[in-house]
Amino acid sequence: MKLIIGNKNYSSWSLRGWLAAKQSGLHFDELTVHIDGDDWQAMKSQNGEFQPSAGKVPVLWDGDVVVWDSLAILEYLSDKVSRDRFWPKPDDARGMARAMVAEMHSSYLSLRRNCPMNIRARVGVELQDQTQADIVRILGLWAEARARFGKGGPFLFGTFSAADIFYAPIVSRFITYGINVPGFATAYMQALWEHDWMQEWVDSAMAEEWTISQFEVSAAD
Amino acid sequence: MKLIIGNKNYSSWSLRGWLAAKQSGLHFDELTVHIDGDDWQAMKSQNGEFQPSAGKVPVLWDGDVVVWDSLAILEYLSDKVSRDRFWPKPDDARGMARAMVAEMHSSYLSLRRNCPMNIRARVGVELQDQTQADIVRILGLWAEARARFGKGGPFLFGTFSAADIFYAPIVSRFITYGINVPGFATAYMQALWEHDWMQEWVDSAMAEEWTISQFEVSAAD
Repeated sequence: MKLIIGNKNYSSWSLRGWLAAKQSGLHFDELTVHIDGDDWQAMKSQNGEFQPSAGKVPVLWDGDVVVWDSLAILEYLSDKVSRDRFWPKPDDARGMARAMVAEMHSSYLSLRRNCPMNIRARVGVELQDQTQADIVRILGLWAEARARFGKGGPFLFGTFSAADIFYAPIVSRFITYGINVPGFATAYMQALWEHDWMQEWVDSAMAEEWTISQFEVSAAD
Repeated sequence: MKLIIGNKNYSSWSLRGWLAAKQSGLHFDELTVHIDGDDWQAMKSQNGEFQPSAGKVPVLWDGDVVVWDSLAILEYLSDKVSRDRFWPKPDDARGMARAMVAEMHSSYLSLRRNCPMNIRARVGVELQDQTQADIVRILGLWAEARARFGKGGPFLFGTFSAADIFYAPIVSRFITYGINVPGFATAYMQALWEHDWMQEWVDSAMAEEWTISQFEVSAAD
């Protein structure tokens, strides 16, 4: 398998696809396409041909099968290995985890624009009202998941799952922009940040020398 | 099971959740919450309590299990009955179907705002550039799915699947706003529109007497 991703410092959706590939336990090769670089422009240009991913990352190639979009990649890998590797087993926990992941996939546009992922940075930001509302909503979901289903470990549903894969870039944003969170959230964020795969990704992001403007960071989401 | 949905004329995400419930083959009761009505306001108010769905529809209740978001509902029901009822069996078709559904779930914001679902209406609209781009992208995906995987029937992947469930409101929009589409797309749209469940939904939408302003229609998406 081959996973095409963007810059590790900036591409939040790539982080989700990459964590999903790690969680599958399958071997995969990474191919990085630098945001706004020549290969990025080449990927976006269609030359009249149908372009499966419309120039977006991440993209998973599995033999002849091409899957774009981080959630589709996660589900495709879950089909391939086993659902239980990605999702909680009990119906009620899995139902909530699926809803939280789907909500992350379609929502929080204000937070995503106001506070784009930028792993290397530690900066202040003026939070817009809707961004504040997004943060409150996310903390509410985290609190509910941890309280109801988090007994078996430090992650949202106890053990590391699709929900953590999808909220990992939010943890990074909360750290980058110094968002004030309650104690339970700090503990969760620390557990996620110290996860081996997260540390591996963060180390690579720190080592990247590619820098793009804040506008482009926002556009890369 | 109980499915909470919004007005059938306007709520495109409710249509997806409802078609997914139909596709499951399980019995479910419908509960309609009128957009901008008293029950809608009550659903949105939190009174300091955690509100699973954040006041959005659709929501599925299965005993004690609550699942919000149309894609999470579809996946939860797929877990419950069988994946093959919702998704194509071959890896390459299923990979593409998953990617198309995920893209629908997170994208086409311009089309969704410029041309909100309004089943009863037949109106002209000035298409914004980004809306045109969304339409071109959707037609490209439909063409690719039909050409590569559509041999077994008139739907995107042959037989009726999650992909049709997710693009059904797009078909309704193309009809409402008189979007020009190539012949293959007209044939697909006709097949989808004539599907028994679609006709059942459309009939109910036609019979609804609730009307909301265009601004609210957009906000309801």
